[in-house]
Amino acid sequence: MRMVDLISKKREGLSLSRDEIQFMIKGYTEGTIPDYQMSAWAMAVFFQGLDIKETSDLTMEMARSGDQVDLSGIQGIKVDKHSTGGVGDKTSLIVVPLVASVGVPVAKMSGRGLGHTGGTVDKLESIEGFKIELTKEQFFQNVNDFKMALVGQSGNLTPADKKLYGLRDVTGTVNSMPLIASSIMSKKIASGADAIVLDVKVGAGAFMKSLEDAKELAKTMVSIGNHLNRKTVAVITDMNQPLGFEIGNANEVREAIEVLSGKGEERLTKVCLTLASHMAVAGQVFPDFNTAYQKLEEILRTGKALETFAKFIEAQGGNSQVVTESEKLPQAQYHIEVTAEQGGYIEEINAEAMGNAAMYLGAGRKTKEDQIDYAVGISLKKKVADEVTAGEVIALIHSNSENVQDSYELIKQSVKISSDRIEELPIIYEVVE
Amino acid sequence: MRMVDLISKKREGLSLSRDEIQFMIKGYTEGTIPDYQMSAWAMAVFFQGLDIKETSDLTMEMARSGDQVDLSGIQGIKVDKHSTGGVGDKTSLIVVPLVASVGVPVAKMSGRGLGHTGGTVDKLESIEGFKIELTKEQFFQNVNDFKMALVGQSGNLTPADKKLYGLRDVTGTVNSMPLIASSIMSKKIASGADAIVLDVKVGAGAFMKSLEDAKELAKTMVSIGNHLNRKTVAVITDMNQPLGFEIGNANEVREAIEVLSGKGEERLTKVCLTLASHMAVAGQVFPDFNTAYQKLEEILRTGKALETFAKFIEAQGGNSQVVTESEKLPQAQYHIEVTAEQGGYIEEINAEAMGNAAMYLGAGRKTKEDQIDYAVGISLKKKVADEVTAGEVIALIHSNSENVQDSYELIKQSVKISSDRIEELPIIYEVVE
Repeated sequence: MRMVDLISKKREGLSLSRDEIQFMIKGYTEGTIPDYQMSAWAMAVFFQGLDIKETSDLTMEMARSGDQVDLSGIQGIKVDKHSTGGVGDKTSLIVVPLVASVGVPVAKMSGRGLGHTGGTVDKLESIEGFKIELTKEQFFQNVNDFKMALVGQSGNLTPADKKLYGLRDVTGTVNSMPLIASSIMSKKIASGADAIVLDVKVGAGAFMKSLEDAKELAKTMVSIGNHLNRKTVAVITDMNQPLGFEIGNANEVREAIEVLSGKGEERLTKVCLTLASHMAVAGQVFPDFNTAYQKLEEILRTGKALETFAKFIEAQGGNSQVVTESEKLPQAQYHIEVTAEQGGYIEEINAEAMGNAAMYLGAGRKTKEDQIDYAVGISLKKKVADEVTAGEVIALIHSNSENVQDSYELIKQSVKISSDRIEELPIIYEVVE
Repeated sequence: MRMVDLISKKREGLSLSRDEIQFMIKGYTEGTIPDYQMSAWAMAVFFQGLDIKETSDLTMEMARSGDQVDLSGIQGIKVDKHSTGGVGDKTSLIVVPLVASVGVPVAKMSGRGLGHTGGTVDKLESIEGFKIELTKEQFFQNVNDFKMALVGQSGNLTPADKKLYGLRDVTGTVNSMPLIASSIMSKKIASGADAIVLDVKVGAGAFMKSLEDAKELAKTMVSIGNHLNRKTVAVITDMNQPLGFEIGNANEVREAIEVLSGKGEERLTKVCLTLASHMAVAGQVFPDFNTAYQKLEEILRTGKALETFAKFIEAQGGNSQVVTESEKLPQAQYHIEVTAEQGGYIEEINAEAMGNAAMYLGAGRKTKEDQIDYAVGISLKKKVADEVTAGEVIALIHSNSENVQDSYELIKQSVKISSDRIEELPIIYEVVE
């Protein structure tokens, strides 16, 4: 078998067999197939696509390219959750304790973030004492004991995907639906989940800008999951404005606690309940979505999910008092108000710009080496469609530096106010399963 | 400027500016742009093409990537000739002395061959004493004295093209018309010609299998030439059977001498006269094609072209007696007849298979390191449409080994005999200018 023939085959629009994909991914991982052949193949895929069999085979081969997590030591159906990423996205902090509290085991591996804010791991590390490293035994024990544990991605997970993703990034081949879908799914498969619930973000602040693209990505990932015998559901949710009120690390933990106490912002709560309900159904705890949704809403009100969150924090060395005394989370030194220059209705809050504003404050990393400041961030006081009067506070900047000019300007620019009444944006667009 | 943006631009079907192409080719030549980006770009070009401005800019940048030959020391309009390659193609050996004998200066650089037979350089080296190395002064002097000289490609000619061609070969991106056309034309531009006559071969034994593809290649190359102010003409000629009767090195020189004596095979003679006429018109020696053709036909009959060929051989150290005493060319030890198993009409002589049969005998190199045996080769006794009786000789194998089984079988297989009368194939399909 020669890679040049596989490139030509794909270029001509033909499908590659499982053996051919195996040859390619194995060779690429081991370095016998060079970058210049792989990038030509990726460009051919951009134009010719991959059918679902090829996409599933590619996913599986990338999952197999490194370590594969064996979760068989954990009882029950292990359900994983993944978000394609957005600004103010703290859903994992809420959804995982929520489903754990009804008995769905979640053995979650999360990454650190690059960009507007930290990843789930960074956010949790804003809690005093919290440790992301657990031994394998402790990890399994915690999940068996109270159904949740969260560790950083360790070991050599999907090296083929890492290598291919890095290559695509510099060869104009990122924007290929089957390559995006297989990249995400390979990591989920390697992480050992039995079922997967995907949060596909759509809108100005997401990777998928159009609903059409988001649907295609959702469908592709669900097909891969089904093809590989992992029950998979994708929920398409809005990212035309930041999710919830908080953007940062400690303040996102604070907002997660509010939702877990049944007092969270409505749209964020709805996204979390929807994702959690699909996870609970996939975990066979509830018979159907509506039952699950109703029960989980109740769980939020009773405080049982918050209790699970507290136990989880404690089990990983963190100060669980934060769930009732949120002032124990890191606090920024300065709080600067951003006010509306005119009255009217909020027409747009550009999520991407808002995320960059948070990054400028130090809430996110520009490069891998950057240090995150957990205390800083932005609290929105208004959401799209809200009424606002001239001079009213629309956002609060939390900073450890007095000079916040860059962020301030960016926030001002990212909020548009209309004199006409504005329709509220949908929060859930579609569920693909 | 970033290469990844240029790749994406081309991927989206947009055109690259001259500055962008310059940045890309300069960077690739110098090694600041890696192979993996260049191959992704080449694959994007495969799908999106290049417009004529981009193709011309690419050609020019590749021509500029290394040494550029300055022929200003030679008087007159320097006309170059290029063939896209075929089996039994000895046209350069004929056309160059033919046009030189009417005053068109040809300062030719030729390569050694890889494949079925040697290149023009190899063929000439089958003449005892012939030397391909000349000093620049001697090269110019010879062209000024009797209008022709031929040297091997030396120095660092079009390194960008060499590098890109090697990359395309292993990344499934050879078959892109603008990339093929710019590759050929960049070498001609760097070689310093004022005008270029192209012999585009079409058929089973050529790189271009269909007339449609051959026309596209011809048109693209002529457009590039015109765009870069080099008068360019392309003649599309038949390669569905070997050209002429001889395949090999010394025996191709012998056939060239026959044509130069006015006694050559009809189709080969016609191709040579056509190419030479366009060269003579481009060189402004004759006012139009028909006049040129008539005059050059006469020149062949008078033996003046053969005289030029003899002078040229002598000037480069070769034994010019070969032009009258062809037995002074290397002779093979064994001559094995291949006969027709049935009577009828020759329907097909597969040029590619016939070329491989010659290579097996030692007439061509499988790898760069192989030594050519100048004496060996194949003499065809029949051409397509010829009548043949059972047992009649259709080809003669010239070999220095008694064991010619592989070649013998291949020749047998490559000749098809029909019981029906067969139409002769056209030899000239079209002229693009």
